[in-house]
Amino acid sequence: MDPEEFRSAAHALVDWIADHRERIPDLPVLSRVEPGDVARALPADPPTARESIDDLLDDLDRIVVPGLTQVQHPMHFGWFPANASLASILGDLASGGLGALGITWQSAPALSELEEVVCEWMRALTGLPQGWTGAIHDTASTACLVALLAARERASGYSEARGGLQAEPAPLVVYASPHAHSSVPKATLLAGFGRDNLRLVEVDPVTYAMRPDALRAAIEADVAAGRRPAAVVVSVGTTGTTAVDPLARLAEIAAAHGVWVHVDAAMAGSALLLPEYRWLVDGVERADSLSWNPHKWMGTALDCSLLYVRDAEHLVRVMSTNPSYLRSAVDGEVTQFKDLGIPLGRRFRALKLWFHLRLDGVAAIQDRLRRDLANAAWFTEQVHGEPGWRVLAPVPLQTVCVRHEPAGLVGDDGTILDGEALDRHTLAWLDSINRSGKAFLTASVLDGRWMVRVSVGVEGTEREHVASLWELMRTAATTAP
Amino acid sequence: MDPEEFRSAAHALVDWIADHRERIPDLPVLSRVEPGDVARALPADPPTARESIDDLLDDLDRIVVPGLTQVQHPMHFGWFPANASLASILGDLASGGLGALGITWQSAPALSELEEVVCEWMRALTGLPQGWTGAIHDTASTACLVALLAARERASGYSEARGGLQAEPAPLVVYASPHAHSSVPKATLLAGFGRDNLRLVEVDPVTYAMRPDALRAAIEADVAAGRRPAAVVVSVGTTGTTAVDPLARLAEIAAAHGVWVHVDAAMAGSALLLPEYRWLVDGVERADSLSWNPHKWMGTALDCSLLYVRDAEHLVRVMSTNPSYLRSAVDGEVTQFKDLGIPLGRRFRALKLWFHLRLDGVAAIQDRLRRDLANAAWFTEQVHGEPGWRVLAPVPLQTVCVRHEPAGLVGDDGTILDGEALDRHTLAWLDSINRSGKAFLTASVLDGRWMVRVSVGVEGTEREHVASLWELMRTAATTAP
Repeated sequence: MDPEEFRSAAHALVDWIADHRERIPDLPVLSRVEPGDVARALPADPPTARESIDDLLDDLDRIVVPGLTQVQHPMHFGWFPANASLASILGDLASGGLGALGITWQSAPALSELEEVVCEWMRALTGLPQGWTGAIHDTASTACLVALLAARERASGYSEARGGLQAEPAPLVVYASPHAHSSVPKATLLAGFGRDNLRLVEVDPVTYAMRPDALRAAIEADVAAGRRPAAVVVSVGTTGTTAVDPLARLAEIAAAHGVWVHVDAAMAGSALLLPEYRWLVDGVERADSLSWNPHKWMGTALDCSLLYVRDAEHLVRVMSTNPSYLRSAVDGEVTQFKDLGIPLGRRFRALKLWFHLRLDGVAAIQDRLRRDLANAAWFTEQVHGEPGWRVLAPVPLQTVCVRHEPAGLVGDDGTILDGEALDRHTLAWLDSINRSGKAFLTASVLDGRWMVRVSVGVEGTEREHVASLWELMRTAATTAP
Repeated sequence: MDPEEFRSAAHALVDWIADHRERIPDLPVLSRVEPGDVARALPADPPTARESIDDLLDDLDRIVVPGLTQVQHPMHFGWFPANASLASILGDLASGGLGALGITWQSAPALSELEEVVCEWMRALTGLPQGWTGAIHDTASTACLVALLAARERASGYSEARGGLQAEPAPLVVYASPHAHSSVPKATLLAGFGRDNLRLVEVDPVTYAMRPDALRAAIEADVAAGRRPAAVVVSVGTTGTTAVDPLARLAEIAAAHGVWVHVDAAMAGSALLLPEYRWLVDGVERADSLSWNPHKWMGTALDCSLLYVRDAEHLVRVMSTNPSYLRSAVDGEVTQFKDLGIPLGRRFRALKLWFHLRLDGVAAIQDRLRRDLANAAWFTEQVHGEPGWRVLAPVPLQTVCVRHEPAGLVGDDGTILDGEALDRHTLAWLDSINRSGKAFLTASVLDGRWMVRVSVGVEGTEREHVASLWELMRTAATTAP
């Protein structure tokens, strides 16, 4: 495809995208396709000859759009917000159009230096400590793995240069909340620590936040047994309930044992753009690394996860490679992003953030986040005021955990009388909303029972949408079995 | 930014990109900025208020473009080709515009099923064994790490579910060519094997391919010493010289010891689109995994690396997570891509491949690859026919390793008389070409001395560009010190 063909096709696609974004509120939120529907609609063989952009746009309409759960829909309250701001998409388009190759500074100096500048902007905007070094990763799963690899190598005195984890004389141990995101145990296992050396530290029964005394006891027990505490993953905003582990106190305990502190603020990081929410990471100056995802609530399109580390030199030592075919005269003077993470090659992802910040402006982004927090607070109040409904966890951010608890299934004092029936009821009313296509919510298990998470924060979600959801929920819960 | 603002800004950006692609041949290939130039041109503080797309486009022209080495330039012969086909960029734009969230099948059924279909198309197009399961990763660095994690867990009987690598009774060992890409030792170290347990197996002095007898001897020595061979990384197309490790024989030796065989065909994979090049992976049916990068020579824009595995069930066992907040009614019936790699969230990357294949058509892509192979063969002939020049390695693909060896520095029989002076000469003439902005080449060390890699394969590179490069090289070499 030559530039003139691109120009014409891209104009058509841009119009398609603008029209698509405008019609999203009219689409069902949850996709209605069954497993295999999409695959069956596609030809089994790849195309030998060229097809036209019109064919592609028809297939987007006919096959792809009906096959997507519309997470940009203002009635999407599932998982966490996954905003894909149109400003950031322009930056991503520019990235593709430029066709830069990010492997070393020399291959794309502007890619490296813009990533440095934008990561520094984001550091300042979120109030993280000066001097921390940031890089963009694909997701917080990767960022968490990178942080745990850095922790592993610090605790082992760079075992990778010797026999690796295989030759270590005593096990290294990782600590996290049982409510930590699934990527935390996954990264622990992939990094080779082993499930036996992952401690899920007890949480407070009301706040679901990690208990400092329990962390201290777990570390001391491991030390007494000859094991070596290596890392604590502090969850600031868990996925289930957005619980906030008390970073300052946990970091103090970790520091006493030289343990790496990684802060997983994948969702909550967006709130750090608001100075009044900086308390979420009180004590971060004692942590070693922090990651959060602009690709969630803030709305820089997937994939854009920031990982900051206090000691970049250490991370480089763990991650660096220096083959002859990548050497250049400026090595040592410049930041080589290949040495701050797993991949060698990188897209020009910083453009997404740059365009997003500049075309939308930080003030407008902050206003939107505050709107969402106010909407979540309003929704929480409605649930609190409604008999038969319960808010199950504190609401520090924009996600509200609720359950409809009809008399007969739950006693007046909150005792669950028939848990199985309660679970069936919860999943039934949730399912009826999701199937309606009018809104989408996701469930999660808390204290052994299903509950429903209402995660506010899609770019297009206004108060009226939250009010409409609440109406849908009350209707669904009273008509569900 | 609302859809109408996006429409207007995106049309402007599309025109900018089309114009930019057209002017690339007039730009210097190697960026001329010095370290810090780009960062200094950017404001220290993020923008509070909105800016216009015009401001952004001005900055792309003023700051970003001069700060990039133009790897889409027809006179770019460095590293490996990193084509960013405009057809694939449309797919990437569609991905952003759709704003899908790939975390589970339910969140985006079309994202999952299109990735399955397109990976199956690519499997068939490259002649890989039926039944292998593919997924798109960001880069081959990540793909290699995933493969080695799968190998580690197979060899250890799923140590991650126990004490991890830390509790294993005997070390697991990884084998690779000393010419393997830097991501191979990196993945080995990150996976926790340790450098002591990475064997760099001897290569043939002429072909630079791994010697099967040397692999056998290394494995047998480790077994005799009580260690456990876990994985062999077979490089099909090394980065230095595109050497092709003999997969069939290596895989046979590995099979005798139950060792995982990972094929790193990051660059050479594109050639598998040509049936006459399938010999490159003869024996692949005995391998366990293979990765290659459509984002290199084939030209699907970064980042798009395919990883195929023979035993997907095993990989899922190593990678899967199943937290309550991600469960749905269809679990078990569908492919969950989160369980085939490291990240939970994924962009709709399959659209890049889908658009690329459909808008360009496979036949045109194959024609272009054959053109590049013919150009590299033509170039090789020219070098062979020119006194004072030498082709240093076989040319199985499109990369030619050359050196200008003036009398006085190299004897008539090819003996290097003054290696230091030869290195200085090589780097001097290379540098003079690169600084001229007229073409760009990269160097690599082979047998302890610098040589120059001419990697043909940019989408816009025709015979005339290769001929022009050869002219530039002869002039530069005769005028350099």
